[in-house]
Amino acid sequence: MTRDNIAQQALAAMLEKDCFTEWLGIIIDEHGEGYCKLHFTVRSEMLNGFGIVHGGVLFSAADSAFAFACNSHGRLSVALDATINFLKPAAEGDIVTAEARELHCGNRTGFYDVVLKNSKNEQLALFRGTAYRTDRLLVTE
Amino acid sequence: MTRDNIAQQALAAMLEKDCFTEWLGIIIDEHGEGYCKLHFTVRSEMLNGFGIVHGGVLFSAADSAFAFACNSHGRLSVALDATINFLKPAAEGDIVTAEARELHCGNRTGFYDVVLKNSKNEQLALFRGTAYRTDRLLVTE
Amino acid sequence: MTRDNIAQQALAAMLEKDCFTEWLGIIIDEHGEGYCKLHFTVRSEMLNGFGIVHGGVLFSAADSAFAFACNSHGRLSVALDATINFLKPAAEGDIVTAEARELHCGNRTGFYDVVLKNSKNEQLALFRGTAYRTDRLLVTE
Amino acid sequence: MTRDNIAQQALAAMLEKDCFTEWLGIIIDEHGEGYCKLHFTVRSEMLNGFGIVHGGVLFSAADSAFAFACNSHGRLSVALDATINFLKPAAEGDIVTAEARELHCGNRTGFYDVVLKNSKNEQLALFRGTAYRTDRLLVTE
Repeated sequence: MTRDNIAQQALAAMLEKDCFTEWLGIIIDEHGEGYCKLHFTVRSEMLNGFGIVHGGVLFSAADSAFAFACNSHGRLSVALDATINFLKPAAEGDIVTAEARELHCGNRTGFYDVVLKNSKNEQLALFRGTAYRTDRLLVTE
Repeated sequence: MTRDNIAQQALAAMLEKDCFTEWLGIIIDEHGEGYCKLHFTVRSEMLNGFGIVHGGVLFSAADSAFAFACNSHGRLSVALDATINFLKPAAEGDIVTAEARELHCGNRTGFYDVVLKNSKNEQLALFRGTAYRTDRLLVTE
Repeated sequence: MTRDNIAQQALAAMLEKDCFTEWLGIIIDEHGEGYCKLHFTVRSEMLNGFGIVHGGVLFSAADSAFAFACNSHGRLSVALDATINFLKPAAEGDIVTAEARELHCGNRTGFYDVVLKNSKNEQLALFRGTAYRTDRLLVTE
Repeated sequence: MTRDNIAQQALAAMLEKDCFTEWLGIIIDEHGEGYCKLHFTVRSEMLNGFGIVHGGVLFSAADSAFAFACNSHGRLSVALDATINFLKPAAEGDIVTAEARELHCGNRTGFYDVVLKNSKNEQLALFRGTAYRTDRLLVTE
């Protein structure tokens, strides 16, 4: 199986059961080895008490992009920790894009950056995550 | 107005519109100045592609507890950044508790810790957030 | 060898070569499995451009405490990432204590908290680190 | 005074007293509004117990670059928190470059990224810091 096939099958296996990513209305725009770009639209049920998108919703979209990027090598990988910086709020109806890139991928651990933007290309939040790569294969060749 | 009244009214004002906290099924157990304890039950729609709770759901509950704690002084406060460490997964049906404590509250900024546990009192995740305190009052005396 | 012996020998092996910890003037007050408490005195050469202790010096002391705590099990462990929150400055002559505790220790990874205080027992900074535990033994039984 | 002049004078005012940056042997390569690039050489006294550069030394160089970048607007700015991810070790004699860029600069807070590299252009560590901007001016016009 090619590396691209592995990435595709790993993503398909994850998406099949990922109910929360589905609830978020996430659409995958691009995906490959160590990479994932996705978007979703902010709905009223995603707002917090100040009428803007809940920080947890932005984190969640970034965390999904991170998971899809770090599992793209076909080895089950889990988040150890993540940091998010909030730059700008998003409102109902805004289309939010999350783009995850691999910063480093070692044998056991990997680091990933996710940038969240609105449709004006303004940065909303910056996420950085650390993954632990288990021995379990997501895809059987 | 007493400080407890301010905290109560700030929380009420936030909860009235906080649709995502409502979607999470969050119940506030205790709330006061610089403090918030809440819980929710993991539903199937909160699971990720590996059949465990999505990291973003744990972050979201922590972020809500953080917001309720840092806004309890009656001044509108927003998250600048937050870090989360994932210790243990949670499954459907698990009751997750998030307890936020104030580590430091300066004139303009505050630091908060949130501990997430399951009903066996096992730590699931540890969250640390930094808040910026605006001049806008949440509660008019 | 008992677990306490392993911790002691691991610390001794590290300290023998740890030139920067020595430069910091760090004294170990207490050390055991998953734990380390140490202190140092702020010298003029540790100050930044504002005449207070350089943030990197506080981080360094915390990072040493973290390293001594996470290597105490006798397996060579390295920092993956760390976060520090700065609560209060320290000045020349201040005695700074750093106390590291293990939050979680899995087979491959561990999480640690380090609290930095001055001699008035005021918190100066809070550090949280993630370690990767290699297979290499620090101590041969 | 032009903005470039303000940045220059702010840097000069900080460097005059920054003893720890001096101890690190830091040389400023480039500096301007929201930006700083510097380098230093790893000396034997900067090594940890494993014979590689102490994590605190890498953090310190990043923290200096961050401080010089966020104070470049002429308003005294202090670090609230920072996160560092360690990708690759550095050894004695290595020349380490730290490049700080402004991600966002609001009225009261700012976010900065610092990338640390060795002379082979390999990333050693990634630092992200949050600054609070006080009202105090560093430079009097």
